Amino acid sequence: MRALGRQLLVDLKDCKAKNLDNMEEIQNIMTTAAKLAGATIKEAIFHKFSPHGVSGMVIIAESHLSVHTWPEYDYAAVDIFTCGEDLKPEKAIGYLIDKFQSNDPAITEFKRGVLRTEDKNLSRKFEPG
Amino acid sequence: MRALGRQLLVDLKDCKAKNLDNMEEIQNIMTTAAKLAGATIKEAIFHKFSPHGVSGMVIIAESHLSVHTWPEYDYAAVDIFTCGEDLKPEKAIGYLIDKFQSNDPAITEFKRGVLRTEDKNLSRKFEPG
Repeated sequence: MRALGRQLLVDLKDCKAKNLDNMEEIQNIMTTAAKLAGATIKEAIFHKFSPHGVSGMVIIAESHLSVHTWPEYDYAAVDIFTCGEDLKPEKAIGYLIDKFQSNDPAITEFKRGVLRTEDKNLSRKFEPG
Repeated sequence: MRALGRQLLVDLKDCKAKNLDNMEEIQNIMTTAAKLAGATIKEAIFHKFSPHGVSGMVIIAESHLSVHTWPEYDYAAVDIFTCGEDLKPEKAIGYLIDKFQSNDPAITEFKRGVLRTEDKNLSRKFEPG
């Protein structure tokens, strides 16, 4: 079934790493994950919340990655939204599980913008504007 | 079932509006949607792609909103990820359907970070760090 986008909801539960509240480290991890997936990073923004928690978004030429952490619950919610055929989000996910040391990861995959058979050919290329 | 986050995947198909390639207008629409939901905007980044398409992320104190548009398919993929009990993402969704004039919207709701009964009390407040 052809679709415009592919979205992976990655729930990283029971994280043993002590980095869920370290904004700089999470930014490094997320941008490295994007590169491992083969994505082209356009921009990244991260915020540290008080008393704890980090949110971050990485806009890539092929859509986005996001992360929200709850250190007090040893939990991080990651999304990887991609378009095109060339990216390998699985590589990013393996890396994220390792870096956050999640003992209970769960992944849900969605297709976004499912095409009907009569839709135009899916040939769009994403070049920065 | 208590959870740390709530995520709405909003597929706006068959959009009749001519604004899916207008980055400035989409940024206005998404930030207005965030405010209608009751969110506190921390930062927003938007990109225009060539030949067409816009991507945008709005980091809110309560998580994020994202949008990716495919004007050539009259399609926009929106996510609204919130935490806490006070936000009203439904208000944002109604507004988005109107502004993009989607004749075929679909919404899928997820709970992210579902808590077990033995988990700590869910009392976290999100204050900017």
